Amino acid sequence: MDSKVTYDIIIVGAGIAGLTAGIYAGRASKKTLILEGSTYGGQIINTPDVQNFPGESHISGAGLMSKVYAQAKDCGAEIEFENVEKIQRGDDGIFVVHASDENYYAKTIIIASGTRNRKMNIEREDDFMGHGVSFCATCDGSLYRNAAVAVYGGGNSSISEASYLTSIAKKVYLIHRRDELRASGTAVEDFMACQNSELILNSTIAELKGSDKLESIVLNTPHGKRELQVAALFIAIGREASIDYIDGLDKDPDGYVIAGEDCQTNIPGVFVAGDIRTKNVRQLVTAASDGAIAVNSALAYMRSAD
Amino acid sequence: MDSKVTYDIIIVGAGIAGLTAGIYAGRASKKTLILEGSTYGGQIINTPDVQNFPGESHISGAGLMSKVYAQAKDCGAEIEFENVEKIQRGDDGIFVVHASDENYYAKTIIIASGTRNRKMNIEREDDFMGHGVSFCATCDGSLYRNAAVAVYGGGNSSISEASYLTSIAKKVYLIHRRDELRASGTAVEDFMACQNSELILNSTIAELKGSDKLESIVLNTPHGKRELQVAALFIAIGREASIDYIDGLDKDPDGYVIAGEDCQTNIPGVFVAGDIRTKNVRQLVTAASDGAIAVNSALAYMRSAD
Repeated sequence: MDSKVTYDIIIVGAGIAGLTAGIYAGRASKKTLILEGSTYGGQIINTPDVQNFPGESHISGAGLMSKVYAQAKDCGAEIEFENVEKIQRGDDGIFVVHASDENYYAKTIIIASGTRNRKMNIEREDDFMGHGVSFCATCDGSLYRNAAVAVYGGGNSSISEASYLTSIAKKVYLIHRRDELRASGTAVEDFMACQNSELILNSTIAELKGSDKLESIVLNTPHGKRELQVAALFIAIGREASIDYIDGLDKDPDGYVIAGEDCQTNIPGVFVAGDIRTKNVRQLVTAASDGAIAVNSALAYMRSAD
Repeated sequence: MDSKVTYDIIIVGAGIAGLTAGIYAGRASKKTLILEGSTYGGQIINTPDVQNFPGESHISGAGLMSKVYAQAKDCGAEIEFENVEKIQRGDDGIFVVHASDENYYAKTIIIASGTRNRKMNIEREDDFMGHGVSFCATCDGSLYRNAAVAVYGGGNSSISEASYLTSIAKKVYLIHRRDELRASGTAVEDFMACQNSELILNSTIAELKGSDKLESIVLNTPHGKRELQVAALFIAIGREASIDYIDGLDKDPDGYVIAGEDCQTNIPGVFVAGDIRTKNVRQLVTAASDGAIAVNSALAYMRSAD
């Protein structure tokens, strides 16, 4: 006897993308389960003051996400706090989700498990987070108008963070540990052409200084220590985008799941929403949008599969 | 003497897409002007209860948009209430925006002027709007669980609205005035395969009946009048997506401005956000996402053009 419940949609991850998918799936009267391995809310819950989510001028990340969490539940989405260990498709076409406590079954899967910003792993990094140290220029750059700021990293995203800041800050240092940037040509030239930009190569960040908030950073350079007075340091040394719980998923070299705006992965019935999707702009509002779109795609898939 | 001010970004339209673009442009310290021909807020301001915008379980469309409007202004976006009549690019690469009262100048343009749902133009249509008559199944469908509902239209969007409703409502009538649907094959077959679907061709809607809210609709069919007891009628006879103020813009046959997820149109420096862009899912949250992405693309364009 098989008394298993089959969900229409299982969503992996309860950040803004997963919870918004929960809202849309629930409102479509689809039996929906969200699985989350840690706390709901995603990365944003550590941000004290979110100012760029439309409708909320000033709200803590945790405050915003507790509202979205309640909303997803009100719309009928179930939520279980368990790690997803493996997802496989059975011969009947139904996905089996092996979670830490139980197995769950679903017609479609929405991957919304997000990414994690890579840290520098130096002293006081966590203390200064939200007090001068940040992972997102688009989010926090406007706090540092006419101040000196630094970006640490050498890839495309570091250039994009640094370039964004050139029109806000008085001075933007881009610090990279190697002797050349990994980022591509024009973007680098555009940054270098800014009058308030300075590229510092072959250097790492040795120390963060300040009392309550960041006041300066000390670099290890080939010529010894160098201290820069900066009000902010934006860390752009990559994200950890690792999904190991589904085999056969097409990913880009950095681990992001490849999908276009329709959030459809290479595996029929598997969709991807939020930061873990290949995309250019990773913001709360773009992740939320993915959640709505992924459900729309999952509904269309279920209609054609029925 | 030319004392003209050149904006970095001029945004046409103050709905959720345009205002979110204003938030992101302002926070990037870009000189930003939003031009709006009528009231701010866009189409959603006529919706009494928005339930699917993440972070807001129940809010009026007007209430939500007044918050987003204030937020865009707080972020530094200027707003003028004037119609945009013509946008042209000058020899210096700067766009001239001819508005009803004045000319404005900008390095980049974001088109966010939205669309207008086509009405049936029959009696009591406006009275029942929000009380049984709706333009959006994804938005309002969940109000009609286990009720009988009707969709009026024959194109792809009518099928998609009707199919969405089959998993919520007890019965879904799809009514079309011609002898076959304009929508494409599989989607129609999927809808027809639902046990609770019924297609009614060669019929138009003659009358809307009910006291405070819609209770039934009367059809003109080839065999005379037919009355259907329905709690809701979803109108899906198309949107008016007309932009006549810029020449040379690539549009699809329905008038939508062609652009991918990056919101870049065929004209360098011109971006498009929200419902007027070619896309599959037209929701508040997807339009807001476009606003953020269009600004990101405009910033990249300005960096490479400087």
